[in-house]
Amino acid sequence: MHNSEKYLESLLTATPQEGRELAIKLARKSIAAIQTDPEMRKVLRANYAQDTAQLIASAQVIAVEFQTIAMANNYWKP
Amino acid sequence: MHNSEKYLESLLTATPQEGRELAIKLARKSIAAIQTDPEMRKVLRANYAQDTAQLIASAQVIAVEFQTIAMANNYWKP
Amino acid sequence: MHNSEKYLESLLTATPQEGRELAIKLARKSIAAIQTDPEMRKVLRANYAQDTAQLIASAQVIAVEFQTIAMANNYWKP
Amino acid sequence: MHNSEKYLESLLTATPQEGRELAIKLARKSIAAIQTDPEMRKVLRANYAQDTAQLIASAQVIAVEFQTIAMANNYWKP
Amino acid sequence: MHNSEKYLESLLTATPQEGRELAIKLARKSIAAIQTDPEMRKVLRANYAQDTAQLIASAQVIAVEFQTIAMANNYWKP
Amino acid sequence: MHNSEKYLESLLTATPQEGRELAIKLARKSIAAIQTDPEMRKVLRANYAQDTAQLIASAQVIAVEFQTIAMANNYWKP
Repeated sequence: MHNSEKYLESLLTATPQEGRELAIKLARKSIAAIQTDPEMRKVLRANYAQDTAQLIASAQVIAVEFQTIAMANNYWKP
Repeated sequence: MHNSEKYLESLLTATPQEGRELAIKLARKSIAAIQTDPEMRKVLRANYAQDTAQLIASAQVIAVEFQTIAMANNYWKP
Repeated sequence: MHNSEKYLESLLTATPQEGRELAIKLARKSIAAIQTDPEMRKVLRANYAQDTAQLIASAQVIAVEFQTIAMANNYWKP
Repeated sequence: MHNSEKYLESLLTATPQEGRELAIKLARKSIAAIQTDPEMRKVLRANYAQDTAQLIASAQVIAVEFQTIAMANNYWKP
Repeated sequence: MHNSEKYLESLLTATPQEGRELAIKLARKSIAAIQTDPEMRKVLRANYAQDTAQLIASAQVIAVEFQTIAMANNYWKP
Repeated sequence: MHNSEKYLESLLTATPQEGRELAIKLARKSIAAIQTDPEMRKVLRANYAQDTAQLIASAQVIAVEFQTIAMANNYWKP
């Protein structure tokens, strides 16, 4: 797993919405770190987007990543 | 995953009940971020609503999202 | 998922035991939010109560919900 | 799920070891809250004790319950 | 589940590495608490060590146990 | 599971990106602690890198490990 790409500069985001987007990005980058072939990932994605069990499992990953990001941003409290 | 919709203004809610509703919304939006076709999601939802394993997995996602929201709201302590 | 029922007034409970009961209630309400037909839920429940994998997955949901409730109650420390 | 038994007096334990035992007890009680027939649970347990996937899933429940108990006890720091 | 063995004296470890080892030990002990026959566990382990889904699930248990241990040790900060 | 290799000196990293890389390393080392044969791991990895369910499960492990590392680093706040 050689993942030399730098994709995470900071956990801080301006808004909760951007925090969600970062959580989704982190989840995707984890998968890309294991399955390093972009063409293969494209094929795999087409399949799992129609498999609800895998969609739900993906949502679980996003939920955990978002929890970390929300903590880092002190929940974007005003 | 182009998810340009802005669906999360704030993690703060007036009541714990609204916190539950936000948790469910976040879980749904994660799935929508991966399976972007609304018609396809409608088909998929009809199936998984009758599959207890997937219902339980969905409840797990909601539980994690709710934990984050509850932390953000300091558990709605009076 | 129209879930207009108000089922969560507060995360605070008098005792840890009541915290467990609330955790179980929250887990059930998540499932009810997705599978909104009570008759269907009754059928589904009879099945999964005999499936250990699903019983264990349900216990996992309860564990996460309980963690949130325990935090909210500062672990019911005297 | 009528679970009128009182099985959790406190999250505080004298030692980490007792914390582990309480975590296992909580996991079991969650399952008992859903599958309320003790004879059925005995049958089910004999099966899943030979299924490594379910053993590992059970260990995951115990890990989460233990995390909550450890927090409650401030990690039994001297 | 009679698990009278005392295997957890403390969550405190001298180093993060020892924390990892304790996390693995706790995960194993959870499984031993349910499947109490050591010979049966040996058979089961040979199987799941070749099943990546179960290896990944085991890694998830270790991750949660380690999180608890890391919290207890204040992340071994100097 | 004899895992005498020392692979974790510290949870502290200079950047969030290095924190991601450490999370991936920890997830891998957990699997190596159970499946100790490197040749067998190479075979298994080739399989699961094409199985989206397992890729997502791996991403879940990474998310939890990263949460611990992020906490240890106080989220790399400036």
